[in-house]
Amino acid sequence: MDELSTVGKSVPRVDGMEKVTGTAKFTNDFALPRMLYGKVLRSPYPHARIGRIDVSQASKLPGVKAVLTGKDNPEGRMGVVLDRPIVAEDEVRFVGEAVALVAAESLEVAEEALDLIDVEYEELPAIFDAEEAMKPHSEVVVQLGHHLLPSIPAYAGHNIPFATAEETPNVYRAFHIQEGDIEQGFRESDVVLENRFVFTRTQHCAMEPHCAMARPEPDGGFTVWASEQHPFEAQLFLSRIFKLPVPKVRVIAPFIGGAFGGKLFVMGMPWAMMLARRTGRPVKVVYSREEVFVDGYSDVPVVIYIKDGVKKDGRLWARSVKAVINCGAYSGRVLLLTGSMVMGATVNYRIPHFWWDSYCVATNEPVSGSFRGFGGVQLIHAVESQMDMLAKAIGMDAYKFRRMNLYKEGEINLLGQPTHAVEAEECLDKVAEWIGWGKKPEKREEGPWRIGRGISAQGKGGLVSPYSLAEVKVHFDGTIEIRHGATEVGQGCNTILSQIAAEEFQTPVGKVRQISGDTAVTPYDITSTANLTTFNTGNTVRRACQDAKRQIFEIAAERLKMKAEDLELKDGLIYTRGKTEAALKLGDIFVPGGGGTAKEERERILKKFGVDYMFCHGACALEVAVNTETGEVKVLRIAQCHDMGTPINPQACEAQIDSGNGFGVGRALYEEIVIENGVTVNPNFVDYKIPSMLEVPLGAEVSSMLPAGVPHEDGPYGGKGFGESTNCGISPAIAGALYDAVGIRMLDLPITRERVLGALKRVG
Amino acid sequence: MDELSTVGKSVPRVDGMEKVTGTAKFTNDFALPRMLYGKVLRSPYPHARIGRIDVSQASKLPGVKAVLTGKDNPEGRMGVVLDRPIVAEDEVRFVGEAVALVAAESLEVAEEALDLIDVEYEELPAIFDAEEAMKPHSEVVVQLGHHLLPSIPAYAGHNIPFATAEETPNVYRAFHIQEGDIEQGFRESDVVLENRFVFTRTQHCAMEPHCAMARPEPDGGFTVWASEQHPFEAQLFLSRIFKLPVPKVRVIAPFIGGAFGGKLFVMGMPWAMMLARRTGRPVKVVYSREEVFVDGYSDVPVVIYIKDGVKKDGRLWARSVKAVINCGAYSGRVLLLTGSMVMGATVNYRIPHFWWDSYCVATNEPVSGSFRGFGGVQLIHAVESQMDMLAKAIGMDAYKFRRMNLYKEGEINLLGQPTHAVEAEECLDKVAEWIGWGKKPEKREEGPWRIGRGISAQGKGGLVSPYSLAEVKVHFDGTIEIRHGATEVGQGCNTILSQIAAEEFQTPVGKVRQISGDTAVTPYDITSTANLTTFNTGNTVRRACQDAKRQIFEIAAERLKMKAEDLELKDGLIYTRGKTEAALKLGDIFVPGGGGTAKEERERILKKFGVDYMFCHGACALEVAVNTETGEVKVLRIAQCHDMGTPINPQACEAQIDSGNGFGVGRALYEEIVIENGVTVNPNFVDYKIPSMLEVPLGAEVSSMLPAGVPHEDGPYGGKGFGESTNCGISPAIAGALYDAVGIRMLDLPITRERVLGALKRVG
Repeated sequence: MDELSTVGKSVPRVDGMEKVTGTAKFTNDFALPRMLYGKVLRSPYPHARIGRIDVSQASKLPGVKAVLTGKDNPEGRMGVVLDRPIVAEDEVRFVGEAVALVAAESLEVAEEALDLIDVEYEELPAIFDAEEAMKPHSEVVVQLGHHLLPSIPAYAGHNIPFATAEETPNVYRAFHIQEGDIEQGFRESDVVLENRFVFTRTQHCAMEPHCAMARPEPDGGFTVWASEQHPFEAQLFLSRIFKLPVPKVRVIAPFIGGAFGGKLFVMGMPWAMMLARRTGRPVKVVYSREEVFVDGYSDVPVVIYIKDGVKKDGRLWARSVKAVINCGAYSGRVLLLTGSMVMGATVNYRIPHFWWDSYCVATNEPVSGSFRGFGGVQLIHAVESQMDMLAKAIGMDAYKFRRMNLYKEGEINLLGQPTHAVEAEECLDKVAEWIGWGKKPEKREEGPWRIGRGISAQGKGGLVSPYSLAEVKVHFDGTIEIRHGATEVGQGCNTILSQIAAEEFQTPVGKVRQISGDTAVTPYDITSTANLTTFNTGNTVRRACQDAKRQIFEIAAERLKMKAEDLELKDGLIYTRGKTEAALKLGDIFVPGGGGTAKEERERILKKFGVDYMFCHGACALEVAVNTETGEVKVLRIAQCHDMGTPINPQACEAQIDSGNGFGVGRALYEEIVIENGVTVNPNFVDYKIPSMLEVPLGAEVSSMLPAGVPHEDGPYGGKGFGESTNCGISPAIAGALYDAVGIRMLDLPITRERVLGALKRVG
Repeated sequence: MDELSTVGKSVPRVDGMEKVTGTAKFTNDFALPRMLYGKVLRSPYPHARIGRIDVSQASKLPGVKAVLTGKDNPEGRMGVVLDRPIVAEDEVRFVGEAVALVAAESLEVAEEALDLIDVEYEELPAIFDAEEAMKPHSEVVVQLGHHLLPSIPAYAGHNIPFATAEETPNVYRAFHIQEGDIEQGFRESDVVLENRFVFTRTQHCAMEPHCAMARPEPDGGFTVWASEQHPFEAQLFLSRIFKLPVPKVRVIAPFIGGAFGGKLFVMGMPWAMMLARRTGRPVKVVYSREEVFVDGYSDVPVVIYIKDGVKKDGRLWARSVKAVINCGAYSGRVLLLTGSMVMGATVNYRIPHFWWDSYCVATNEPVSGSFRGFGGVQLIHAVESQMDMLAKAIGMDAYKFRRMNLYKEGEINLLGQPTHAVEAEECLDKVAEWIGWGKKPEKREEGPWRIGRGISAQGKGGLVSPYSLAEVKVHFDGTIEIRHGATEVGQGCNTILSQIAAEEFQTPVGKVRQISGDTAVTPYDITSTANLTTFNTGNTVRRACQDAKRQIFEIAAERLKMKAEDLELKDGLIYTRGKTEAALKLGDIFVPGGGGTAKEERERILKKFGVDYMFCHGACALEVAVNTETGEVKVLRIAQCHDMGTPINPQACEAQIDSGNGFGVGRALYEEIVIENGVTVNPNFVDYKIPSMLEVPLGAEVSSMLPAGVPHEDGPYGGKGFGESTNCGISPAIAGALYDAVGIRMLDLPITRERVLGALKRVG
């Protein structure tokens, strides 16, 4: 890799300066004029029927602008299978579920209003244990399990088949994989070991709490700023929920203060949108730390049953796993995790006989979600703990036992996919060597303290996504601008992507500019999760750069009368391969051309006509009345007709002419900045007269006409421009009308009363 | 044109709702946290040497954050030829020139501070009359005239040669055109008529005053919001002035409340940038109405000498024009106008003998600029007034006289360019008919009032620009998003461009979404002036749409096993030509593909490997100490090694591993959300324990290792993702170490002290 100049180097983070100086903007750093603060009233019961909700007291509190309940829900729901109501409707299903929303002028008032909302609940039996809940005919029904994935493109890439369990209402998804014959595997094993592992719920504890701000837009859409890891999927879901065309929801993810899987489908977004929709004002919803814990998609509680068989010689021979995953009251992203979790048991160790069952089970606990590792923390813990115990059982060193069972390059893993470019053995060797595996610990054991060493290995798959797009824009000063939809959650993707672009253009990282995470301006990206970004967005940035270079070399080659493939680029200079003197500056290829199509088009027109103007003509006729005593001139009627080729919007064309009337009359009769010795003496609308509606003819006294419309053969649909001309023909027509009326020929503008009177006096 | 469905229809303005409801955002509607208000101290003298400037009192005023003078100027200057200092340096050259800038916490304080700045002036002789100023060896030298246009691409398109006059220091530019033999023309004429027309200075009087807000960015660049008609040229100039790479200046033009040529190079931009650069805070500069009059690039005062010869039969035979244009103290855009003004005399009427001289002359009046018509108002007034008088002189009707002299289709005009698709005659006929030309006015003359009629005709050229680019993005719900760099100054370009896109996609205008006027996100556009936008941006939007359709049809054709040219699109549905039933929905072509390159790439990888995952492996080894009395577990040393193919940024990779240590230790030993009956009982960092620096090994006790780096052959430079895995291997290694130390095998997480103690008790 030594031919690389930037890739492979530990360049400093491109967002480092912003972050250490506190100027980096996170969602909560944004505020908008007239912004309201949104807060959420949350259920105190894990399962209850909602009776009457009395919001009258809360609504009366001064500063409260909206109190919404489940009755005000948009039609859609949130979550991968759209199962979670935005605000609870008839039932609440976990402690912390949203029951009402408040928007108020201040956070304090919003919080006070929450206390004034009176909700009647009828408690229902609740269930918290996933294994209990999945028992057939479980008495407590949290949610029905019949769901299919929506046909959203972002999810179509998942190749793991989704199965729907119908035996029990609380099982949302059952996922199964098998290989070989598991029973035979155990029979053939020398040692069989079975254990049950229990994992509790944990939080990501990102420094930044979940946060969203929604602004209603005049077109009925919304702009949403949010600490959201996948702005593009959020856009899809929000547009679905609020029944809006996709681009009418613009999601912007500014810097995110840590995410780790917890900021996918931030509920603050639909809440802020509901409140913004109702109030017509921007609304910001920031979770308290407590709310992050309760409703921040904590990692899943899981129970893992694992049974392993091993040969005396150390060969792993059979493994069966059953994982019961508690997704809480709604499925969140745990539906996906239920499948993806299998990675940790299938891609690291060679096992001839394998059996996997995992279940996504609904309970009345809070909604869980994804966490860095996506089930890996729990599964790898169970698997690796087993590896230790298995090694011990057959009297083998835990390090050597692992090492001999690792997949090698080219082997097909339990997912049926080849092992490529992995360095599992080297990883294991390096950590074993560093810790001094097999040697005595250096730390002395003293008092009650005992010293021990542990080791683990692992493997994970990262999706090769077809949905990470990038654009590259090369500026003529050599700045490389990359646009991508990945989000900088702190992981440093902006730095990595800058390095890739810098490498391709052989330019310093500082010459790369980045625009990211805004659905309105950056291309689609599936999401910054699952180890995706470097591989997928990195690849697409690199290819976009290569495409841009190709275009640059094509233009340069034509200029230099050379072949594009003989050119190379470095530090904004274009070289002939092998030469040390630059042939062109990058900026040169922008002169005089500019840009592709438009430039070619212009050249085509030039070639045909030798022309680089399109012409527009027009005429004006009008009638004035002149007061011979005061010199006052009034325009009584006015007609203008201008050609614009094909009028693309006739009314807009007429409006251009109308507007010219006002300008023209003003210029002809009134307008003049008086400068005395360089001093502007009438810099205001009292002393500088512009025509009002009284001075310009209106209605039937005006005709703003378009001719037949001869199409310009090079204009869009035959159209061309003309608006600027409409104020130019008025004053001469007024001067002519004045002459017609009273025989005076005024040359200079404006034709003020004084000048008219003076001229009238001169002609007698 | 009847086959068109949207083009040619008077669809309502797409920005109408926003504007009538007051939600449309103009520059002054934006405010930023910590924003300061900028104000300008302006010269009271038309020409003076600046002595000492005492800013000490102003600087001391509470709330004042910066007082800047010409000494703080950036190196560059403003204007087409960069002749205007941002703040006056040694001399002031017009009343109203900026002498000092203030930034303060409030507008009131900023204004108060202006009064406290003490400037010593030594008055110099001034000159205000352009004809005086251009006299050879004029005693007052305003500016030297030796300037060339900078080689900025945007200007390279102008094909009118620029001449530099050297005879007098105050003539910035002299421009000449001739055709035939002017003296012979006058000799051959039957009637010759000569007049001098004087035009005073006028203002555009846009509702919105000039306005700019600059925010310093952490990378040393600036974001500038401004009521600026050409954000892209502004970006070029500002980057030049402040010696910044072009993309580090982002110029955003929100809605503009009228411009009419007056909002090109809004000086508020460099002022706000200077103040923002000094204070490190956002600064907004809004002109008062007075300032708009004094320094808002008012239209040029011009003196026009025009001499015409005509044949008795009505044929215009000769015309000579001399225009003396007062550009004020600096050249502004009047340099360009000096050439462009000739349009009004060259493209409408056939004249065999023609002579043109125009001069751009500096005086000590305020800087003038462009105005709707770009010299057309004045020149057309003079020309058309002459046409009336000439008709009268030869006893011909003014309408018929004009009509017979108009160019006809295909004739080559005085600029050497063919007349194409103009409807000059029809325009003239229509207005004449409407006004009842040749009939008696309907209005009765009463008292002192006399009634008269006037008529005029005109022609203008609009540049065919090579610099108007557009992008089109088709969303899978059929929304068409167009991005262009034209600015909506009220002229309705957003509506016209929406119609063009709607027409191309055979979809309602409401399905078109528009992003415009932001140098960071929209493609380059030369500027929204000079009748340019419909023709140039319109063309490029149309072509971009056609290109997008071509791509859509190619994908659809493959899907349908048909030829792309047999497909058509309407209302988001793809039809086989001639069929009435849709073959595909537009959205279908997005499934399962997503987008071009990335999709193909994925398919290539799939084909090769049958794979859609890349795999990453890793290992962990660590050492723990266990307190057998308290159950406390301390991780003493920790090593992780993970593969990521080629490490694109090794330090960033190590940081990923480091971060995994903290996560892993927390998960293994401490973290657990406790839910009792569905209630989260520890939703805070007191009761929910995450590891601090005391709980995670640091420095020499940690090794975050990368293996050799086997490149993934499909990753960017061989790279792949891995960061998510780094927290998964810690807990099993800890469990293993615990077993190693004290012989207990902990299965469940977290491995709390209580659990360790309990297990220790069980094993005795």
